[in-house]
Amino acid sequence: MTTSKLIRLLPWIQEPLIVSAPMRPFAAHELATAVTLAKGLGFVPNGNQTVHTRSELEAASKIFDSAALPQALGDVLKHSLPIGLGYQIYQESLEEAVELISEFKPIAVWLFAARQNEDYARWAEAILGASPNTTVWIQVGTIAEALAVVKLCGEEIVLVFQGSDAGGHGLQHSAGLITLLPEAADALSQYNIPILAAGGISEGRGAAAALSLGADGIVMGTRFLAASESKTPKGFVEQILHGKDGGRTTRRTRLFDNIRGTSDFPSEYNGRALINQSIIDEDDGIPEDETKQEYEDALRDPATGYGQKGRLVSYAGTGIGLVTEIKSAREIVEETRRGAVHAIESIQHRASRWRV
Amino acid sequence: MTTSKLIRLLPWIQEPLIVSAPMRPFAAHELATAVTLAKGLGFVPNGNQTVHTRSELEAASKIFDSAALPQALGDVLKHSLPIGLGYQIYQESLEEAVELISEFKPIAVWLFAARQNEDYARWAEAILGASPNTTVWIQVGTIAEALAVVKLCGEEIVLVFQGSDAGGHGLQHSAGLITLLPEAADALSQYNIPILAAGGISEGRGAAAALSLGADGIVMGTRFLAASESKTPKGFVEQILHGKDGGRTTRRTRLFDNIRGTSDFPSEYNGRALINQSIIDEDDGIPEDETKQEYEDALRDPATGYGQKGRLVSYAGTGIGLVTEIKSAREIVEETRRGAVHAIESIQHRASRWRV
Repeated sequence: MTTSKLIRLLPWIQEPLIVSAPMRPFAAHELATAVTLAKGLGFVPNGNQTVHTRSELEAASKIFDSAALPQALGDVLKHSLPIGLGYQIYQESLEEAVELISEFKPIAVWLFAARQNEDYARWAEAILGASPNTTVWIQVGTIAEALAVVKLCGEEIVLVFQGSDAGGHGLQHSAGLITLLPEAADALSQYNIPILAAGGISEGRGAAAALSLGADGIVMGTRFLAASESKTPKGFVEQILHGKDGGRTTRRTRLFDNIRGTSDFPSEYNGRALINQSIIDEDDGIPEDETKQEYEDALRDPATGYGQKGRLVSYAGTGIGLVTEIKSAREIVEETRRGAVHAIESIQHRASRWRV
Repeated sequence: MTTSKLIRLLPWIQEPLIVSAPMRPFAAHELATAVTLAKGLGFVPNGNQTVHTRSELEAASKIFDSAALPQALGDVLKHSLPIGLGYQIYQESLEEAVELISEFKPIAVWLFAARQNEDYARWAEAILGASPNTTVWIQVGTIAEALAVVKLCGEEIVLVFQGSDAGGHGLQHSAGLITLLPEAADALSQYNIPILAAGGISEGRGAAAALSLGADGIVMGTRFLAASESKTPKGFVEQILHGKDGGRTTRRTRLFDNIRGTSDFPSEYNGRALINQSIIDEDDGIPEDETKQEYEDALRDPATGYGQKGRLVSYAGTGIGLVTEIKSAREIVEETRRGAVHAIESIQHRASRWRV
């Protein structure tokens, strides 16, 4: 039932739904539109300035206006922009957001990082007032948070459950999808709320697992950072392609918030990033102001600033080891969809021989 | 191929293989034998004293000797004891272990927490020398660790991949099963080594997910702590049954090693436990020696020592929210097997409608 609702909200998609996360600042209109055109759903993040986000949405509109669209997508385009828009709401202006959403009518708006759950309700109400066809997606990391959000915002939302393997910002303390999803599905079974799964899904097997754990669709971030349409800097992409064994080579930390000036990020969150020299220095007890200075020096030379010995920040999930090639967003979406089906067929084939 | 090898090693099992972990000190012969009799594989931990472990193995032998066994299990009993034995090898005597293994010939010995990977190879060689029908299982938490172990120990082992959601001791930094398993399956594809998945699996959906991510069988710990055959103290079981939202209500920590006298546990490990007053005190900056004293005081009254306000230690995984009832080990094994098949059938049914 929840999956049918998702398909009603996003009628052009091909199941299983594959979503590209609003990774700030690298997921721009090129990536988001390509994911939607591959019958998934792409998100762009709100940038630092509304004027910048506006030009992203304008560029996305132009791409859809000039593309040959399947009918279901063309129909949506008459009333909505078929990409999503992501906000880390603790630091953003609802007024500016409403203005932009009212003008572009994105099919979805993904809210994250509220200072308090009441802010999600306030934003959701204002967004629906400005654009009734927009669905509000809210990112949560625990069952308690999900239930609180549903109580405040009602049933006409989509919930994105982010597990502890996710790259970038998420709850400091959370579970992996293997327990988070089934518990979420049970806790929300009385509601008709689609559940999206994020955190550690890089390809078909992870997608198949998340779907069998109770998700209606899946979100990938790290995998899409290595899409040819992503604005991810070259050195960062290289780290993803060569990185392995993400449990060992990434770390959840507040360090990068502290040295990059985002220390006002609500305190229950931190971010998972590839381990680099700054984290090694922190482990070695080197004072944070020295690390901050090194980081700022590195900014002057982005070409050499990434990597294990580098200082620039590469937020990425534990799934890096499963990302080994740059591919187009379309290839990634189609391959993940096919991979999920293949994984489901394989396990079904195995299970057909079991006597239970 | 790896699954066929597992079935050859454990010919009485019913697929998918369900294993009870050697949870120290609560998993004793009653639990392990019940899991094996339900066509899974049960493990007992080596206790603090070999004399204690010996009496557990003697008791297990008696149970099998007096039970009406299916033929495959009866055949195994002629040369091996069809339960496994678990060692945290950093602190144990190989000499005593070899004596015990040589006498009882457990079908599997699970090694964990070596000070260095070479110790696994040393133990494995000695164990096989003492009991050629015993298979050595080695618990790992990263791909690098797995590859190092295979290089040292060869292919005639079983690898248990433990994800970050697991309760009890595990790597301080590791990934959840959603990324760990597929990367492990790829990295080991050239070997014929069965992969077991542990960490966050509490019921059928998690089992189905782990199997579709690449595992040949699954291990549960926390779920079996609430088996009627487990020696888990009442207050601890209550915590598991009432606990929810494990990402929020459990924590990976070294605190309990420090206050319980296991601070010599190799430094790359910590343990996931239910958050109680000791962890809250640590968050509040209360000195560890005060917390240690409170813990020691609580030991005098185990009946009231567990719980959120308590001091006694409840090692448990993030899957606690999915464990709501005490059941017999047989019920748990059978229900998990049925649940896995059901989850696979459901996702297969959904996927049959996808056009890919």
